[in-house]
Amino acid sequence: MRLDEKFHLRIPGPTPVPPRVQHAMNRPMIGHRSAECSRLVLDGSRRLRKVFGTREDILIITGSGTSALEAAVSNAVAPEEEVAVVVTGAFGDRFAQIADRFGARVHRLDIPWGEACSPDRLSRFLADRPQVKAVFLTHCETSTGVLNPIRDLASVIRDRTDALIIVDGVSSLGGVPCAMDEWGIDILVTGSQKALMLPPGMAFVAVSSRAWEVIRQTEGPRFYLDLRTYREQLQKETTPYTPGIAHLFGLEAVLDMIEEEGLENIFARHRLLMEMTRAGIRALELPLLTEDAVASPTVTAVRGGDDLDVSALQQELHRLGVIVASGQQYLKGKIFRIGHMGYCDPLDILTLLSATETALHRLGIPVQWGAAVGAAEEVWSRV
Amino acid sequence: MRLDEKFHLRIPGPTPVPPRVQHAMNRPMIGHRSAECSRLVLDGSRRLRKVFGTREDILIITGSGTSALEAAVSNAVAPEEEVAVVVTGAFGDRFAQIADRFGARVHRLDIPWGEACSPDRLSRFLADRPQVKAVFLTHCETSTGVLNPIRDLASVIRDRTDALIIVDGVSSLGGVPCAMDEWGIDILVTGSQKALMLPPGMAFVAVSSRAWEVIRQTEGPRFYLDLRTYREQLQKETTPYTPGIAHLFGLEAVLDMIEEEGLENIFARHRLLMEMTRAGIRALELPLLTEDAVASPTVTAVRGGDDLDVSALQQELHRLGVIVASGQQYLKGKIFRIGHMGYCDPLDILTLLSATETALHRLGIPVQWGAAVGAAEEVWSRV
Repeated sequence: MRLDEKFHLRIPGPTPVPPRVQHAMNRPMIGHRSAECSRLVLDGSRRLRKVFGTREDILIITGSGTSALEAAVSNAVAPEEEVAVVVTGAFGDRFAQIADRFGARVHRLDIPWGEACSPDRLSRFLADRPQVKAVFLTHCETSTGVLNPIRDLASVIRDRTDALIIVDGVSSLGGVPCAMDEWGIDILVTGSQKALMLPPGMAFVAVSSRAWEVIRQTEGPRFYLDLRTYREQLQKETTPYTPGIAHLFGLEAVLDMIEEEGLENIFARHRLLMEMTRAGIRALELPLLTEDAVASPTVTAVRGGDDLDVSALQQELHRLGVIVASGQQYLKGKIFRIGHMGYCDPLDILTLLSATETALHRLGIPVQWGAAVGAAEEVWSRV
Repeated sequence: MRLDEKFHLRIPGPTPVPPRVQHAMNRPMIGHRSAECSRLVLDGSRRLRKVFGTREDILIITGSGTSALEAAVSNAVAPEEEVAVVVTGAFGDRFAQIADRFGARVHRLDIPWGEACSPDRLSRFLADRPQVKAVFLTHCETSTGVLNPIRDLASVIRDRTDALIIVDGVSSLGGVPCAMDEWGIDILVTGSQKALMLPPGMAFVAVSSRAWEVIRQTEGPRFYLDLRTYREQLQKETTPYTPGIAHLFGLEAVLDMIEEEGLENIFARHRLLMEMTRAGIRALELPLLTEDAVASPTVTAVRGGDDLDVSALQQELHRLGVIVASGQQYLKGKIFRIGHMGYCDPLDILTLLSATETALHRLGIPVQWGAAVGAAEEVWSRV
């Protein structure tokens, strides 16, 4: 059988699209100014609120996740304004790059890749920089599998400053609890192709009323990603520009699936997938990049070392039909990453771990047959 | 039967997605840094060249058509620079709005909606404004159904200035001939959801070497839509940010269909669809918005009048399961628009005309049964 026809996509996004969502996306095309398209936009905007933990409407942008990161920067930060960006990996770095490109004065708080930013660390950083107008955080740092403690980070920011709190939730929302309103997040963005189980190409943004005040007054050139226009048009039950309508069809099915399973159950499933993955990898005596306390329920990074060439392992897994991701930037060749978010269940993790045992064996690395699978099964049995 | 399950989408985009394209879009999701995704990006980029009439690679942006209009502005025009925008309808107006938002000094050449811009008119306009750095044109103005004579307009621009020639080909490319290199177009953009038969959510941009020189030197904040990054990443056989992968799957099927039918045959089919539509509408004694000489092969606008309330006709057609579009801005309530591009054949036009006869009859407007259909059949018989 050809491996491009039967394979297991276990990268941290894009993630597999459920058959039910694919089916929904096959609906005959409709007009973007039709009543049905308005219904899909409004419904999507409202039903996503729970995923974000907010009472605000969710704005729907047709674009990659990065388009939403840019919207968060360009709408909220004026040129020459000072901002702090907590960089725990490649996506924190992207926030810093975008802010820099839009003329902000960027104060980077660089955290070693694989670690989370602690509230103390951020508090001390901000103590010296009370003038920053916005603080950019990454919830799950996809490049390392770290889950930053957003609630506690937001709390120390609020204690120190009135800065806007802007959070990248691309690889967390829909898989990990997030309480935007309760935690005091001002702008929260995510993409379609991670825990939300859609193909890439759509992005979602929520904005607090505090942030709307800032956005209203922020000048600087923007058109396609001007959030004010999205808000105005949503009040007219539409989007400013022709949206990705097939994605809107799919979003409806995704939201049905989320509501049927229940968000709490979804979060518990993602924690279980993480724990099974970590137990299995540990049983193979492979080092995990992140500590348990900061591990993300959506993605797990595994280190290589003297004994293990991670690229070779990745290739061997590929030959078996299991696709994992390599490291990015500094971590290229040093880690591989397993995505376990969205349309993923415990059996998928057992498949992945079983393939990993086989791949290691084929690379001449001694493994106890069934060790990883057994350890993960044991974790699963405790649920 | 419910009309939301069986209907005929005859608006000027989004257009119906062919079953073969839908099928392709259902392929299991893949990683955006995989060899297969690189193949899709490169193949798409190269095979689209013929549609654009260029030897340049086509850049693939995940976003609505407007994201590509913005890219054309923000990459090529610096703040305070003077530009000319030929406005023949809502989409020319959008180019002017975007240029204005990005700080350009915009010289608008406003043409009455429903007319094309003549080369003479543009020549005189530019004679008084030799300092403009770029001229923005709309190939097919979707809001009116006018096809502007881009070859001749580009020629008078070249005769007068070194200004970049930037063209919106959103509702023309893939349905109407366009020879970017031969005509001297510098930036040409289009969207996925018109004659290219994909769902909305992807946009395509081609850039001449002359324009790359300008883009390289154009400062101003841009990140997601920075064309330099798309070009660099295309040289590495990828896109800068996660692309709409389902759209890439579909694009491959679209390009197969285009190559199998042949571009010349596709253009002839679109001309036939236009001629059948116009003959049918004339047989019903309804006034066409545009003259034959400037009519677009992709969309036809029909005027209302004392006898005909176009909104009522549109609603009656809707009840019959045929969806046409209303007018935009000044033309709201004054015209309706029929899309006949992409996955559309002569029988679709006969269906539309037959429904129009029935709808008019139901509105109490006297029609000779079969008049429109017969006139269109006669046109078809001459091919």
